[in-house]
Amino acid sequence: MSYKPSDRLARPDSAELAAAIEILKQRFGERLSTGLAVREQHAHTLTWIANEPADAVIFAETEAEVIEVVGIAARHRVPVIPFGTGTSLEGHVNAPVGGISLDVSRMNAIREVHAEDLDVVVEPGVTRKQLNDYLRDTGLFFPIDPGADASLGGMAATRASGTNAVRYGTMKDNVIAMRVVTADGSVVTTASRAKKSSAGYDLTRLFVGSEGTLGVITELTLRLQGIPEAISAGICPFPSVKAAADAVILTIQSGIPVARIELLDGLHVKAVNAYSNLTLPEQPLLMLEFHGTEASVAEQSTRFGEIAADHGGGPFSWTTRPEERTKLWQARHDAYWAALGLRPGARAFATDVCVPISRLAECIDETVEDVERHGLIAPVVGHVGDGNFHLTALVMMEDLDEVARMEAMVDRLVLRALAFGGTATGEHGVGQGKAGYMPIEHGETGVRLMRRIKHAFDPDNIFNPGKILPVE
Amino acid sequence: MSYKPSDRLARPDSAELAAAIEILKQRFGERLSTGLAVREQHAHTLTWIANEPADAVIFAETEAEVIEVVGIAARHRVPVIPFGTGTSLEGHVNAPVGGISLDVSRMNAIREVHAEDLDVVVEPGVTRKQLNDYLRDTGLFFPIDPGADASLGGMAATRASGTNAVRYGTMKDNVIAMRVVTADGSVVTTASRAKKSSAGYDLTRLFVGSEGTLGVITELTLRLQGIPEAISAGICPFPSVKAAADAVILTIQSGIPVARIELLDGLHVKAVNAYSNLTLPEQPLLMLEFHGTEASVAEQSTRFGEIAADHGGGPFSWTTRPEERTKLWQARHDAYWAALGLRPGARAFATDVCVPISRLAECIDETVEDVERHGLIAPVVGHVGDGNFHLTALVMMEDLDEVARMEAMVDRLVLRALAFGGTATGEHGVGQGKAGYMPIEHGETGVRLMRRIKHAFDPDNIFNPGKILPVE
Repeated sequence: MSYKPSDRLARPDSAELAAAIEILKQRFGERLSTGLAVREQHAHTLTWIANEPADAVIFAETEAEVIEVVGIAARHRVPVIPFGTGTSLEGHVNAPVGGISLDVSRMNAIREVHAEDLDVVVEPGVTRKQLNDYLRDTGLFFPIDPGADASLGGMAATRASGTNAVRYGTMKDNVIAMRVVTADGSVVTTASRAKKSSAGYDLTRLFVGSEGTLGVITELTLRLQGIPEAISAGICPFPSVKAAADAVILTIQSGIPVARIELLDGLHVKAVNAYSNLTLPEQPLLMLEFHGTEASVAEQSTRFGEIAADHGGGPFSWTTRPEERTKLWQARHDAYWAALGLRPGARAFATDVCVPISRLAECIDETVEDVERHGLIAPVVGHVGDGNFHLTALVMMEDLDEVARMEAMVDRLVLRALAFGGTATGEHGVGQGKAGYMPIEHGETGVRLMRRIKHAFDPDNIFNPGKILPVE
Repeated sequence: MSYKPSDRLARPDSAELAAAIEILKQRFGERLSTGLAVREQHAHTLTWIANEPADAVIFAETEAEVIEVVGIAARHRVPVIPFGTGTSLEGHVNAPVGGISLDVSRMNAIREVHAEDLDVVVEPGVTRKQLNDYLRDTGLFFPIDPGADASLGGMAATRASGTNAVRYGTMKDNVIAMRVVTADGSVVTTASRAKKSSAGYDLTRLFVGSEGTLGVITELTLRLQGIPEAISAGICPFPSVKAAADAVILTIQSGIPVARIELLDGLHVKAVNAYSNLTLPEQPLLMLEFHGTEASVAEQSTRFGEIAADHGGGPFSWTTRPEERTKLWQARHDAYWAALGLRPGARAFATDVCVPISRLAECIDETVEDVERHGLIAPVVGHVGDGNFHLTALVMMEDLDEVARMEAMVDRLVLRALAFGGTATGEHGVGQGKAGYMPIEHGETGVRLMRRIKHAFDPDNIFNPGKILPVE
């Protein structure tokens, strides 16, 4: 069920499009670009999905400018595709019928830090690393860490998560409120800064994960965490994925508040060893982190080590030394690049699914077997505390047969996850690549309700058309 | 801004209503009641809002029956008001223009416990205590604890929370998925059992807190927690609300994973002492609970004690003995009844607001001063870790002047919370009582989007009309 551009998606009227771009050009001058290189860069995704550039790229600097762009685009019925850093993975920023790519990366001010309330107000172009650098002296941090240094607006739009989600949740749990420019040009503040509310429909959670299809995020209020007094981290090899997954289940059931618990399969460990010059045992490996006081992280680490041993795992070697921890997690964050190193010349096709944790080992084992049976190379890495795992398929794009086998394998992977009671994507989002699975995952009624939401918020379909739901 | 029944809300056609009830009577026999006592009991709310009974009450026993009722009601354009235990506080279950009260309390089966995945599948009429009794031997528990033994369907519908929310979140965070009967009679499953997903609009969070206005919940998948190995609990008096709030802020900033942190003002402590035969110091008091291992709860308790002392609080007396903990929390859960004891013959009018925690002390202090200035009696109790507090106004209902002063005082309270960057309700919901504040809280655009959601899901306005949004 690979993505093919749809000819059923309505193109904007070419005269209207030209008129809109002309008006915007006069208004934004050098900050509007129609050059192919810039347009293609703004349709770039880290996948094999074909590049579909917008007709123009605008670099907005204020919410007022976003309102202006949306107003002009709406009047001329021209698509608007919000753009942050372009690190999404499923064709989210493509412009299948053209339109305006609305780049908000220059809206990157950190507006207010409320240390007592553990929240921060930022513009959408602020990246997660920028935010954490800024916060360093406050004793606070923002825990959501997708692989890329993504923009926080984009992370909210795709409901991103990462390695810390098992303890701190996903963007769903860490966006307190947003300001969003809607299709009629008015701005909604989705919620107050109160930590909880029962006052009406949850607009915040509706915009989180909506992938730019319901409005343009212009401000975010995000939840922060205190930097833990002590952190321990370590690695633990296991004889099988099943043994590792069982240890993870018992760890979570026991209420050990693990902050990170990541699985690499043997192939991925091999890749990481080569890339990061390490000598990790090349078998299923858990990488863990614990947050708390000195005494608490020691206790958590010891208890995990006992659970691991009970499942045939170990030795669990852990440390609280910052430089060793940093090295460990840098290796984890470089896993994508490490995977590429397994097969020089290949392109990496990253996909993710998420299943109930009780089915995780079975789902991974069947997937690895499927990959091997079809002569493919695709290491596995997983946020196993959430039942979420990634496959990085390494494919020679000029080998069309191999590409076809890879596509079919990914299709089986997604259907397998759905059959196991899971979801087509745990954290990458739908974009174009997974839109075809939404009717299977959500059923006819679910898709109908989603279409109604889209229509209620964006009746002329100007916001990021052709994403999330399959074209009717 | 007290609630007045609106004559602008469309009444169902009386012939259509009679026809619908006749059909339902034939179908449900004794399980449909038109007796006044039953109808009034189903419009009962724990407030002063006038009772507005439905025309008939149906006791549904299966999802198929709910579908039937919704289908017949939709065909005849007759309102359907979902009903669980009737413990909501803002007129949620009233039938301002009549219709059918759809009682799902008999749908109370616990269907599946997935211990490895830490989730459970229940019917909507299961109550929180029933669920926790059932789970007792599994080592798992469901943490959300509003005061009443509410139904889980109702708790999802009102986005309930309670004393554990500071650690475990609210219903927003603990509902994994639901089955919901929609206006056209089709059923949607809002999500899979996967712990996280980025697959499309968040239907789960849209139904959580929708107060029965978008559909009828017929099944819930809920997140469970492991029962902590050790629990400590204790009380700590403070010289002022401000000192207590500052201690709470520092506790949370320090990353101490406090499970409960409740504030009673001096008046409420007095009420609790009298009701529960205790001798607590009658000044602002924090009641706390810590979850973890033996070593960890001891460490958390010690550290909190230090923070409290730094803010002039203490002594912090804590224990891990179950019988003492139970006594303490029973007193907290009886606070509503204790408050009633302060003024025999009075009715209690409970309201709640939630503000950023940095503004909490100021908001409470101004409120207490306002209460006293207007000769009212209204003790304060708060889930202070969330910035959420309750006022239980004790009013002689036959004293119309006092009732008017109470209403005006509650109005000022809500406007004060909104002015402090908070919300009109942290956990009670909107119902009828707070619908008038939604335009202030969400602005014109926010209310317009909410109306569009309502219209998209329920174009004929059959689900719980007259709730959440003010009648246009």
